[in-house]
Amino acid sequence: MYQMRAVVLRTLGDPDVLRAEEVPDPHPDPGEAVVRLRAAALNHRDVWIRTGRYAGIKLPVILGSDGAGEVVETGANVDPAWCGRAVIIDPSFNWGDDERVQGPAFQILGLPRDGTYAELVRVPADALHDKPPHLSFEEAAAVPLASVTAYRALVTRAQVASGEDVVVTGIGGGVATCALLIGTRLGATVYVTSGSEAKIEAARRHGAAGGVSYHDPEWPKALIAQIGDRPDVVIDGAGGDTFNKALDLVKPGGRVVSYGATLGPVQGLEIRRIFWKQLNVLGSTMGTRRDFAAMLRLYADGLQPIVDTVLPLDQAAEAHRRMEEGQQFGKIVLRI
Amino acid sequence: MYQMRAVVLRTLGDPDVLRAEEVPDPHPDPGEAVVRLRAAALNHRDVWIRTGRYAGIKLPVILGSDGAGEVVETGANVDPAWCGRAVIIDPSFNWGDDERVQGPAFQILGLPRDGTYAELVRVPADALHDKPPHLSFEEAAAVPLASVTAYRALVTRAQVASGEDVVVTGIGGGVATCALLIGTRLGATVYVTSGSEAKIEAARRHGAAGGVSYHDPEWPKALIAQIGDRPDVVIDGAGGDTFNKALDLVKPGGRVVSYGATLGPVQGLEIRRIFWKQLNVLGSTMGTRRDFAAMLRLYADGLQPIVDTVLPLDQAAEAHRRMEEGQQFGKIVLRI
Repeated sequence: MYQMRAVVLRTLGDPDVLRAEEVPDPHPDPGEAVVRLRAAALNHRDVWIRTGRYAGIKLPVILGSDGAGEVVETGANVDPAWCGRAVIIDPSFNWGDDERVQGPAFQILGLPRDGTYAELVRVPADALHDKPPHLSFEEAAAVPLASVTAYRALVTRAQVASGEDVVVTGIGGGVATCALLIGTRLGATVYVTSGSEAKIEAARRHGAAGGVSYHDPEWPKALIAQIGDRPDVVIDGAGGDTFNKALDLVKPGGRVVSYGATLGPVQGLEIRRIFWKQLNVLGSTMGTRRDFAAMLRLYADGLQPIVDTVLPLDQAAEAHRRMEEGQQFGKIVLRI
Repeated sequence: MYQMRAVVLRTLGDPDVLRAEEVPDPHPDPGEAVVRLRAAALNHRDVWIRTGRYAGIKLPVILGSDGAGEVVETGANVDPAWCGRAVIIDPSFNWGDDERVQGPAFQILGLPRDGTYAELVRVPADALHDKPPHLSFEEAAAVPLASVTAYRALVTRAQVASGEDVVVTGIGGGVATCALLIGTRLGATVYVTSGSEAKIEAARRHGAAGGVSYHDPEWPKALIAQIGDRPDVVIDGAGGDTFNKALDLVKPGGRVVSYGATLGPVQGLEIRRIFWKQLNVLGSTMGTRRDFAAMLRLYADGLQPIVDTVLPLDQAAEAHRRMEEGQQFGKIVLRI
């Protein structure tokens, strides 16, 4: 029996707990397929799981929500024509029937189901999508989780229209950089915030109209000066004081989409701003099958993901260290 | 020259600063009309202004946003057929062109413009609406500000549908009791919270399906038990810790409308709840001309406002004391 190589998380801890080893090959249940992965990509979720800061951790588990490769085996009730096709995997499983919100059976690939830091992964066949031909496997692996999250935040939730001004906080991370790409593609004018001038410069190269350093406590004012107005929409994954500033910054009647809270809860939330400005504060996480398919069409139409680094699977620990240092701009990819 | 009687706020302070006196009659500018008021009603806004807790206070001013009476004089460019008609006054002036949010010129009757604690009030003619014939002047005066705020919160913002479960926090206050009436009228099943068992009982008599005391720190659990599920919508004017509990209480994918923050800012806002539950947090204040007209149709179709107390204009101080004690259920009205 062939043994695949995979990075199995057996104990929580620092990046060095991530070591490649040989484990039994997965085989498809009915309705499933097995993909020979060519590339995976990291998400902050992987770091939170590895360090024990995630709900429902069950070990051992193979991390990884993002993957691209070729289908090598199909289970019962799956069209065998999938075999040999180059695919990208939708990491949202069992969303449920309500487009507004995931149901209680919702799962994300890479916990509890084994994920993509592996040579093979077993997934429901309806998670398979043809890889856009112009994308390499590394580029394709950079797309799924971050792009579907950004797409849902911008399109399904904020309904960003061409010509609107959009601020994306904390550029550099996966969802934020995808929001920059997708927002620009939709015809919005996108501004960013970052702690790093180099990242603001990189954002400009990828289509941002401007940006400010969040080390300036008056950054909302600086941004309003750049835009010449308040923005219509703020897309925020930071939370904490940034969320309060987003409520202050955004135009009356505007939308603030929250997709995360890396800075934690908000202290002293000024509710007065929410009601007096008639704001829409819209929570968003991951995306539906429909969100994923619509997002993928943007890439099929020529959108190019931003890859920060490509490392071999054996260097998953090194890849996690890079993510924890927060120096990346775009996705950190593992070549398999 | 006839001198009307009015309660003029000349200095900030306790309720006793509210004394009726004689002041010159108002006369209409072009586009305006003068209404001989038969009744006015109180809002918390009046108390906040009297005690100096409101932006843009300019003294002296006649307080009062709610009024009903008869048109006695019309200015240039106003159809003189208004004269003699029994009217109810829309207290939102100069909303602006954007249905989503009031513009910078927006004003509320009763500051800076003189309001309805008076025998006569001068208002823009487009603020006039025919009084629903089955309502007395006291009942009609109980409608405007609270009902338009509740209507916009429930209908324009939350888009409450028949059959949905709606929780209204802090029943007893003007907007909350109007939200109970309007929500029930829309076919929603309305639950309430209050610090007073008597108010919960009163809410039941006015159509509430149930209610819980917010003195129970586990009140969201108690409410879920009553409803048999989480509610689709929470309408909150309290803010503070109640807002956090509303985010916890509401159904995933649900809506929380905030129209006020009597408890002040929120500490430790759990943003995670907003994004993971894909919530819509919708700010709302006052309402547009369209909101007002649509709200008024509900009353014209037979909805009956809740009047707590009727006192003569000379007892405005006593009326304010009653509002500050917070014992009222429904509107406190001044007969003029």
